[in-house]
Amino acid sequence: MELIDGNLVSRKILSELAEEVARLSGIPKVVFIRVGNHPASISYLNKKQKVASEVGIRSELLAFSEDVEEQALLAQIDLLNAEKSVHGILVQAPLPSHLSEQTVFNRVSPLKDVDGFNVINIGKLFQEDSAGFVPCTPLGIAELLEQSEVNIEGKHIVILGRSLIVGKPTALLLMQRAKKRNATVTICHSKTENLFELTRMADVVVAAMGKPLFLKGNMIKKGAVVIDVGINRVPDASKSTGYKLVGDVDFNDVTPIASKMTPVPGGVGPMTVTMLMRNTLRAYYLNN
Amino acid sequence: MELIDGNLVSRKILSELAEEVARLSGIPKVVFIRVGNHPASISYLNKKQKVASEVGIRSELLAFSEDVEEQALLAQIDLLNAEKSVHGILVQAPLPSHLSEQTVFNRVSPLKDVDGFNVINIGKLFQEDSAGFVPCTPLGIAELLEQSEVNIEGKHIVILGRSLIVGKPTALLLMQRAKKRNATVTICHSKTENLFELTRMADVVVAAMGKPLFLKGNMIKKGAVVIDVGINRVPDASKSTGYKLVGDVDFNDVTPIASKMTPVPGGVGPMTVTMLMRNTLRAYYLNN
Repeated sequence: MELIDGNLVSRKILSELAEEVARLSGIPKVVFIRVGNHPASISYLNKKQKVASEVGIRSELLAFSEDVEEQALLAQIDLLNAEKSVHGILVQAPLPSHLSEQTVFNRVSPLKDVDGFNVINIGKLFQEDSAGFVPCTPLGIAELLEQSEVNIEGKHIVILGRSLIVGKPTALLLMQRAKKRNATVTICHSKTENLFELTRMADVVVAAMGKPLFLKGNMIKKGAVVIDVGINRVPDASKSTGYKLVGDVDFNDVTPIASKMTPVPGGVGPMTVTMLMRNTLRAYYLNN
Repeated sequence: MELIDGNLVSRKILSELAEEVARLSGIPKVVFIRVGNHPASISYLNKKQKVASEVGIRSELLAFSEDVEEQALLAQIDLLNAEKSVHGILVQAPLPSHLSEQTVFNRVSPLKDVDGFNVINIGKLFQEDSAGFVPCTPLGIAELLEQSEVNIEGKHIVILGRSLIVGKPTALLLMQRAKKRNATVTICHSKTENLFELTRMADVVVAAMGKPLFLKGNMIKKGAVVIDVGINRVPDASKSTGYKLVGDVDFNDVTPIASKMTPVPGGVGPMTVTMLMRNTLRAYYLNN
């Protein structure tokens, strides 16, 4: 089994991005919005700010209290949409239940929507209109497959999970009529009856349903490529944090069967952040 | 094999719509736009106008010459978007190659987009936001499956074709997290390598790739449900028109194997027109 090293691929892309940013006359800037104090959100945003700084992208964090009113949040987004020095805006999910994620994401200007969750950018992904922003995790998955020389054209990719953020946009991206895309895609989910049958025939399995260690070795065919999008915190008394991160794939069980696979951490995770930087640089060009 | 009769289901829905329209204080109005003299476009629009009239919906046809400039077409759409007495607008595809279908479809106000092709409505379908318009053929397919009591929850639906108009929106619609949806969906297309393997395992096959008589009996499993979206004109000297209509399914060959299937004509075709009427009535409410 060959490891698909997301950190390695990320470092290469980030160093190219840093060179490009250094040559610009201005400085790209992204604003992150966090609501509440969800530990994972804090940790993701720390990582995003750290990587932005490494690449030379300016970032700013606006943290709202858990009980912020939707109107206040939307008003802040409107200000950022209008602010010329801000090129990218990202609202960290998940949001507290009194807020509509859809309303909030759709309020971000499509031209600054570096997360690609605005309804117009989703529609453009569907229409194969490359002018839009594509969500970062699907972009990261496509990039990892390409860099690892996994040929997906005409191949069967089974995606586990139908989320707006990973499952569905990944399907739309990988099935596009384009070189190095053109995959045959199946989306499975919690209601799927013949899930094992489907995963066992897949050339590539993308696990993105948020169930720790769900995918086992006996669920894939020999030589399949496995992409693990899961990032689950499970209790671990031996860690100082009290938890460890595991994917949706049972790594050790799948290792003898897969030909290539991503680890957790160090697989899709860093690629998501890297693609966010690439999207921010695109937003800089679009807004200048 | 039980025939799924699109004409029968259509008549039932149309008579309900006609009753509803008769109770309104105003009259719903849809404007059709045709560019050039494509015979199929003329015939589809005739049918749409005829059915609209039966239901009590007012319709108007604007026919542009083949060489109309895009700006002129877009200016006309702007006028219709602003015109209060017009509730629905439909631009008949295909458009001549000098026009961008995407630009034209996206110009139709999302609130009058009874065809559901505006980028915002496509995005809403993806986001499972029921406030948007869903394209008519996918709606018709979902309705036929429901009316024929085909249970698709958790079942495997294989869609042949990844078009913006049928394949992709049908996938998004049928996989939605909702009662009588929740299907597991695979999209196959011209590059798919294991197409036979996939069609042979499907509980439902939706054939929508525009290849006459493509799907044969040996490509499906015993008892599968087959939905034929193809409408292909093939030469036939015995017809006064010189052609006959055939689907993407080899009807006679599939008949002994399928449990239920749609004929061509008389299957999905009438349902597409019927769903257009339903969308127009919705547009009337939305714009009043």
